[in-house]
Amino acid sequence: MSELRTSEISGEQILAFAKRLFPITRSITGEGVRETLRLIQDILPEMQIHEVPSGTKCFDWSVPQEWQISEAYIEDAAGRRIVDFKNHNLHVVSYSTPVDEVLELDELQKHLHSLPEMPTAIPYVTSYYADRWGFCLTHEQRESLKPGRYRAVIKSKKFDGVLNYGELIMKGASKQEIFLSTYVCHPSMANNEISGPSVVTYIAKWLATLDRRYTYRIIFIPETIGSICYLSRNLKQMKSRVIAGFNISCVGDDRTYSIIESRTTDTLADRVAKHALKHVGAKTKVHTFLERGSDERQYCSPGVDLPVVGLSRTRFTSYPEYHTSLDDFSVVTAPGLKGGFDFVKACLEVLEGNHMYVATQLCEPQLGRRGLYPTLGARGIESSVDDLLNVLAYSDGETDLLQIAETCGISFATAHRAAQRLLGENLLRLAD
Amino acid sequence: MSELRTSEISGEQILAFAKRLFPITRSITGEGVRETLRLIQDILPEMQIHEVPSGTKCFDWSVPQEWQISEAYIEDAAGRRIVDFKNHNLHVVSYSTPVDEVLELDELQKHLHSLPEMPTAIPYVTSYYADRWGFCLTHEQRESLKPGRYRAVIKSKKFDGVLNYGELIMKGASKQEIFLSTYVCHPSMANNEISGPSVVTYIAKWLATLDRRYTYRIIFIPETIGSICYLSRNLKQMKSRVIAGFNISCVGDDRTYSIIESRTTDTLADRVAKHALKHVGAKTKVHTFLERGSDERQYCSPGVDLPVVGLSRTRFTSYPEYHTSLDDFSVVTAPGLKGGFDFVKACLEVLEGNHMYVATQLCEPQLGRRGLYPTLGARGIESSVDDLLNVLAYSDGETDLLQIAETCGISFATAHRAAQRLLGENLLRLAD
Amino acid sequence: MSELRTSEISGEQILAFAKRLFPITRSITGEGVRETLRLIQDILPEMQIHEVPSGTKCFDWSVPQEWQISEAYIEDAAGRRIVDFKNHNLHVVSYSTPVDEVLELDELQKHLHSLPEMPTAIPYVTSYYADRWGFCLTHEQRESLKPGRYRAVIKSKKFDGVLNYGELIMKGASKQEIFLSTYVCHPSMANNEISGPSVVTYIAKWLATLDRRYTYRIIFIPETIGSICYLSRNLKQMKSRVIAGFNISCVGDDRTYSIIESRTTDTLADRVAKHALKHVGAKTKVHTFLERGSDERQYCSPGVDLPVVGLSRTRFTSYPEYHTSLDDFSVVTAPGLKGGFDFVKACLEVLEGNHMYVATQLCEPQLGRRGLYPTLGARGIESSVDDLLNVLAYSDGETDLLQIAETCGISFATAHRAAQRLLGENLLRLAD
Repeated sequence: MSELRTSEISGEQILAFAKRLFPITRSITGEGVRETLRLIQDILPEMQIHEVPSGTKCFDWSVPQEWQISEAYIEDAAGRRIVDFKNHNLHVVSYSTPVDEVLELDELQKHLHSLPEMPTAIPYVTSYYADRWGFCLTHEQRESLKPGRYRAVIKSKKFDGVLNYGELIMKGASKQEIFLSTYVCHPSMANNEISGPSVVTYIAKWLATLDRRYTYRIIFIPETIGSICYLSRNLKQMKSRVIAGFNISCVGDDRTYSIIESRTTDTLADRVAKHALKHVGAKTKVHTFLERGSDERQYCSPGVDLPVVGLSRTRFTSYPEYHTSLDDFSVVTAPGLKGGFDFVKACLEVLEGNHMYVATQLCEPQLGRRGLYPTLGARGIESSVDDLLNVLAYSDGETDLLQIAETCGISFATAHRAAQRLLGENLLRLAD
Repeated sequence: MSELRTSEISGEQILAFAKRLFPITRSITGEGVRETLRLIQDILPEMQIHEVPSGTKCFDWSVPQEWQISEAYIEDAAGRRIVDFKNHNLHVVSYSTPVDEVLELDELQKHLHSLPEMPTAIPYVTSYYADRWGFCLTHEQRESLKPGRYRAVIKSKKFDGVLNYGELIMKGASKQEIFLSTYVCHPSMANNEISGPSVVTYIAKWLATLDRRYTYRIIFIPETIGSICYLSRNLKQMKSRVIAGFNISCVGDDRTYSIIESRTTDTLADRVAKHALKHVGAKTKVHTFLERGSDERQYCSPGVDLPVVGLSRTRFTSYPEYHTSLDDFSVVTAPGLKGGFDFVKACLEVLEGNHMYVATQLCEPQLGRRGLYPTLGARGIESSVDDLLNVLAYSDGETDLLQIAETCGISFATAHRAAQRLLGENLLRLAD
Repeated sequence: MSELRTSEISGEQILAFAKRLFPITRSITGEGVRETLRLIQDILPEMQIHEVPSGTKCFDWSVPQEWQISEAYIEDAAGRRIVDFKNHNLHVVSYSTPVDEVLELDELQKHLHSLPEMPTAIPYVTSYYADRWGFCLTHEQRESLKPGRYRAVIKSKKFDGVLNYGELIMKGASKQEIFLSTYVCHPSMANNEISGPSVVTYIAKWLATLDRRYTYRIIFIPETIGSICYLSRNLKQMKSRVIAGFNISCVGDDRTYSIIESRTTDTLADRVAKHALKHVGAKTKVHTFLERGSDERQYCSPGVDLPVVGLSRTRFTSYPEYHTSLDDFSVVTAPGLKGGFDFVKACLEVLEGNHMYVATQLCEPQLGRRGLYPTLGARGIESSVDDLLNVLAYSDGETDLLQIAETCGISFATAHRAAQRLLGENLLRLAD
């Protein structure tokens, strides 16, 4: 890689884009996904939008029918719309079947979802693979419902259509690939949805400015069915090319930094993510694969075996607003998104810069005559062993720079600077 | 293995049998061993009783002469029998040579054994390989002996006879063997003797009810000379067949559960025993091979190298009553024996059920349509990763179920239930 | 090796020799090195003194010109010699160019070196590879200098001469080598200089009394340029022969014992040094390779890759008097030097005695009939597993005695005694 250029992408820029994506009614298929992908395409014109027809077999799964919704509300006996999908798209259970029915409250209750422990939050509920209908509302509102008759209306349909996803291949010097995956299937929630595609969009924008060592495969998919569908079409090629991958989710709050280990815990992606986490300078958390929940479930499954790690600020299920209407822009902020962006970027910088080097000289070279070491030997100087000497001493042609940084307890960036300087003096040469 | 059937063997049943074995005067050879083996044979009629003639070479050892004893007592000057073998068979040093001698107290003292630190206990003393005679008594009694003349009488003989041991081979689907060893050479002591053969007898009875995957080689032997003798006759076959073995000793008290690691610390037997110990739900202790003391000394010796681990409740030398007359049925109880039985059984259940599986589908299968996963996605449901998903995710065809249970932090039984369910749905298949 | 003989070398003997070496004005070349080597040769007449001409290429380095100094002083305006090299050879910067100049105090200051934080110490300063001149003095004296004119005189010259080093090859039964390196290039400092060659000289004297298993390669060199020069001439042979090596430095104070790990941390030298350290019975410290500073920097560099560990009492830079005039015989003492000697000796004893053995008998042999085990079995006796049994049990022909000692938690010396006894009984045989 040539020198990585400092990114000039700001948190505010990412936040502004996140706010454009936020209001769209997304589900695992349908117009909401397409609208989201088109907005991303505005920024990343090279991204392809793919279609997979309903019914297509994907390993053990089939692509479901497309779901369309135009209206959904509950009217009380007085004809007032007390719950309306127009006010918040979380009010309807995703993939609800159509209904137009008048029910007594106790019958209606069977179709209502709320969270007693979070009385002001509308929960996010889905029913992709079983026919049912339902509404979500705050527990406060639910408690206030009086006995009587209510009319429940959902104008939706399921039909043979397509599942969509976005795919961006950014060629690098090598055919070996770095894989980035994020999802675009949740309606209006900020951290557990919008932060992922927003950060990844701007990561791709930053990658476009680099002389890339690796090729990047970046996908924007519906969760679970999307990753399974994508793998069913691309697995063979990915297995032969992907050297490290990241599933990027919940990267917009400013509370912590976290990763989800791969199943084997020791892939290049794990090494990179753990190093970046160690040097992030903030609260961090390593989740094991037992705490997985997003598409790393598919990428790391046996036989798929891709080296994929989850990257998050605060991971799904670990923050209180998760999967509710409270997951909004009070949770996701410009500094939060910028932190997420920088964390992903740091991982990619390590990958781009991680080489094996070998010292060109036997024994320590005479750094003094190259101006790299003091010519005056005195207490505290003549025995000082600095980053240059350490990077040299561990560059045996078999140890990558990431491992050297770990051994020396320094950041990859510091090790990288030392290696560049030694390369400039012809004291190191590439060994990979 | 087919489903393991619930054992209906009770602690009381094992205790009743232990009480029948207790009174017999055992040593490393002789009628006491034969009587013990015949009682075991009553329960396990398939068990063979073998004879090895005195003088037979066994590696560096020879089978000693057989020892017979009919009477042993000390009379005081008044002709009163103050110590009598009839009252407790620990009163005579095992393998004592015959004697009929009148001695002054200070001469007699050279032949007396007691424990100053345990004044009410008769110690257990042996002299198998050097000719001497001696009596054991409580220190209280010894202190009360008045100066004067005493008559010491031991009616014993050593003669060319046989060494006996019991051997039970229970065929399984595989020729690969699980090896169980316990010893039958100590006189009337409950934990460090009788608990071992009693529990192993009932383990064999339980094994008889199973469709066994493995063949079981179960031996009841005199300690040290017996295991050396047995190995000298069976080593080659055992080395090619035994995949895991357990030396079972002191399994009748209800204080703790413990194991003695094999020499290499990492055999299948070690993995199984450590897992069982971790899930036993009581106080536990792992002894290293440096704390060995029973026949694991032979089974794990270099060149023998059998994968054998010691299983105990409280191991020999670790409880106060060890090798004294106080090791009786106040130490060994029905709950103690049942715990020992269940601990051994748990190890064998892991071995019988431990397979490598491989997922039949790439990516997670759609569990919802099989009724194995909720079709409603909501907070706390859609990301829940349960035992089924974990067993699936780690079943890569190279990781055994025991390792999966360890990785997931669940008991083998839980992992086994999940695997059975997945097998039933054809989502897993056997890979070994 | 035959039995290691007890050394009769005393700390006082080593101290007396150290005091003879102390006053000499050494640098990396010149008469001081030669005089030092000749004094060592008085004790070790087999040692060869080698010469390498100035300008000789050694990997990335060249042998510098030889430096000679006859006089060096500062006179005040009154013609008093206020700083004089005759009083302490640390007063002049090593390799100072000649000068005879009158300067104002503020000009002179640019050529003065002192330690504000240690106002009574003269610092040790060198300038081997850049032309400059300078004087070192206590900070107290420097602070007392009055403005005015001073005359600085250094009568020195640099000329094409030689670099010298001493080399002693002591043949052993095997061509495999143990490598010892120490340095002879610092002027009058006791711990960080004189302790090293003094201890190594007496180690060689002790080695001369042994039936050596290994060949010993012992060198007395100027630091850095000396080790690089030596490696440039001997590397190929050393790589094929050296199985373990030690760089010996600062072995004369009585404060702690320490090692510097090799780069790979796990060579035979590391294993030996860590074992010796663990059993030294005093305060200890393991420094990682990141804390290196002496010739281990060269010996462990990539491509050189010799298995070399640093041995010290208190390592360079870790004690307050380091590289100052305070590093004298108040720091280095007879017990300190004897401790250093014994520490090095302990490492070499492990290497000489470290074999792989294999038990000659399957199962435990009958130790009782060999008088190695009690024939009376009683509480606390019959299960006792002692060093003999442990060394036997772990002697599988693939585990060296050092590893067995580590596993058993005993000193190598204890394990060695047990092995010798077992060899004597033909219960063990050599497996390497």
